[in-house]
Amino acid sequence: MSTTTGVHAMVRRTHEGRVLSALRAFGALSRAELAERVGLSRTTLSEITATLVKRGAVVVVDTDAALRRGSGRPAERLALDPAAGQFLGVDFGHRRVQVAVADASHEIIASGVERYDDGTGWTDRIAAALGLVDRLAREHGLHFGALQAVGIGVPGPYTRAGAGGAHITWKQHTAPDGVDAAFAERFGSPVMVDNNTRLAALAEAVSRPEPLSDLVYVRLSDGVGGGLVVAGRLVTGARGFAGELGHVTADPAGAECRCGKRGCLETVASVPAILTACRARGAGTDSLDDLAAAVAKHDPVVDAVLRDAGSALGRVLGAAAMALDPDEVVVGGEIVHVAPVVVEQAAATLRYEMYAIPAAEPIRVRAGRLRDSDGALGALTATFHESPLLAGYPETTAEEEPQRSAP
Amino acid sequence: MSTTTGVHAMVRRTHEGRVLSALRAFGALSRAELAERVGLSRTTLSEITATLVKRGAVVVVDTDAALRRGSGRPAERLALDPAAGQFLGVDFGHRRVQVAVADASHEIIASGVERYDDGTGWTDRIAAALGLVDRLAREHGLHFGALQAVGIGVPGPYTRAGAGGAHITWKQHTAPDGVDAAFAERFGSPVMVDNNTRLAALAEAVSRPEPLSDLVYVRLSDGVGGGLVVAGRLVTGARGFAGELGHVTADPAGAECRCGKRGCLETVASVPAILTACRARGAGTDSLDDLAAAVAKHDPVVDAVLRDAGSALGRVLGAAAMALDPDEVVVGGEIVHVAPVVVEQAAATLRYEMYAIPAAEPIRVRAGRLRDSDGALGALTATFHESPLLAGYPETTAEEEPQRSAP
Repeated sequence: MSTTTGVHAMVRRTHEGRVLSALRAFGALSRAELAERVGLSRTTLSEITATLVKRGAVVVVDTDAALRRGSGRPAERLALDPAAGQFLGVDFGHRRVQVAVADASHEIIASGVERYDDGTGWTDRIAAALGLVDRLAREHGLHFGALQAVGIGVPGPYTRAGAGGAHITWKQHTAPDGVDAAFAERFGSPVMVDNNTRLAALAEAVSRPEPLSDLVYVRLSDGVGGGLVVAGRLVTGARGFAGELGHVTADPAGAECRCGKRGCLETVASVPAILTACRARGAGTDSLDDLAAAVAKHDPVVDAVLRDAGSALGRVLGAAAMALDPDEVVVGGEIVHVAPVVVEQAAATLRYEMYAIPAAEPIRVRAGRLRDSDGALGALTATFHESPLLAGYPETTAEEEPQRSAP
Repeated sequence: MSTTTGVHAMVRRTHEGRVLSALRAFGALSRAELAERVGLSRTTLSEITATLVKRGAVVVVDTDAALRRGSGRPAERLALDPAAGQFLGVDFGHRRVQVAVADASHEIIASGVERYDDGTGWTDRIAAALGLVDRLAREHGLHFGALQAVGIGVPGPYTRAGAGGAHITWKQHTAPDGVDAAFAERFGSPVMVDNNTRLAALAEAVSRPEPLSDLVYVRLSDGVGGGLVVAGRLVTGARGFAGELGHVTADPAGAECRCGKRGCLETVASVPAILTACRARGAGTDSLDDLAAAVAKHDPVVDAVLRDAGSALGRVLGAAAMALDPDEVVVGGEIVHVAPVVVEQAAATLRYEMYAIPAAEPIRVRAGRLRDSDGALGALTATFHESPLLAGYPETTAEEEPQRSAP
């Protein structure tokens, strides 16, 4: 963004963001009212609103004739177009893609899911996602001319360095090459791609009245992944791997992990690991539903397995929490709703692990609020943060500052 | 800083910072040259330079008579006063305080140490520190009229929230109440106080040509502490305890720790723990010097103890590194120079712990560059970052932006 073009584009986007924010806050406004609220000249504002109207972000709703007493031509009043999808969140899983569309108020106005086989290639996954977006647009009468940003979650690590984000191949997980380009080309909007577990951490951090500035998040699923929020920012790490709590050693003498180590957290606390451990002790747990049934009847064998998994989780989370001293630790994944004892045991173990820290304000450990069906919410949340609506964020305002001599 | 006064003071400090930066970069400049370089009006600049001359930060060195061809009165040229201490770093240990003074170029122009008993109260420690500053000023002919900031390191956790930073009592460690006030009153400069291990992490992160943006730091000393740099920022955590790696469990069935848990890293990798473990196996290791002698003769018993400590350290650092994916892991403390095998073993164990991450760019593990005698360097580094010289930093520039309507 050091080029003049980059700065100009950024300034324009920021101005647009302010106009949209003002319309979101005040409903309908005339151009004169808008110019005053956002602190822009009439000329600049006219250019901005013309673009926004052309893109369909903003519509002319009426004139202010009914409101004014003086003479003169009544002024048009502008408002947000309720049919304009402004933020798009896409979550690619191993067997399905979820899409959610939000309007300028960050309200979800459409969402859906499209399934595919585990072995489906990325070209077909991307096509499935774009087809789903088209279907949602048709069904809900939406358009994307005003789209501000696309957020995309993918399974496995993904770096955010550079414009498109270089991808990393990580054992079984492969982040798709070109997924960002496909969406950027289709929508002409900024696209951000990240690990979907990391995006879920972001969504959990902001899913409360006061967003958390420090959060440790772990998700128990087919594998175990995690994400960290430190000082109000999502952490990527030096090479894009931050938050991979599933491969912290929980038991040095434990079972071999798919990563090649022994006793990783994933070998005791992933959903398949838990189901397998229950079966090894004679329980008929082939699925999460079976596990739910066993938990419902207080099966002691299953309870013991879940507590072991919770303890291992608590040890790993305890180490992370001693390092990071977060406000909150969140355990996500469908299993925490099926088997709350995992979170209870993790919380107890974590309290022991953090005994060195004064207990005046003990750390909160809770189950995640997001369900598996909320997959696209993390990606959507990321677009809210990436969008020019957050013009007050340092990285954006830095671009609009007037040139000055280097200090 | 939401008051008008706060903003004005910040703007003034920022302008001063730019003037000082320009003089540092260009040597001596006339007021007209300065005004141009820093992008300020002649009037504003005159006020700023008058204040800086009055405070002794800047001196009139000559006129530009020799340089100019045209007519008119020769203009005075201003330069930094080489006798002006601009940054003060203070490091309180359990048995000594270290002080370092830097000039506007961040060069250390004076440093010293003052010893006291372990039981000395904080009033006396502060008096010892201020007396040491006076002595250094006398011996080096320095003055502190231009002091920009004071950085203070204390043993144990210390939060940075609020203007002065609320203090936290932490088992045996007590961060002194009022240490910041004592220095602020004496020097009239901003004072920042933090855990000295965390400040050492900062100093290690910036002690290289290209500062690291992600670092895990641990220090082996009487206890074991640590500090984290994430995305270029020092991490404090939600309650000020971030980086306390010494109390991560390294051995769940290990010895009882002073914190009340079992098998904390500190129970196997602190200097006293290592010396005790060596003695328990018959080695005559009463001090680090004894340990150095044993290492020099390749004592296999001592080597085994050091490797055990290194393994425990590697496991704890491995868990932190899996969570944070840092550029580098640094192990500090005098013992790493006495017994490099600790760091070698920690590096080997950490490489195993991080086996899940592709090894294309394996994580660097190294001994700390700072020696125990460099204590005040961390606190000094913090003042460089806290100072208005870093006007480009988001938190400072945000204050100087012109008022505009809320988006």
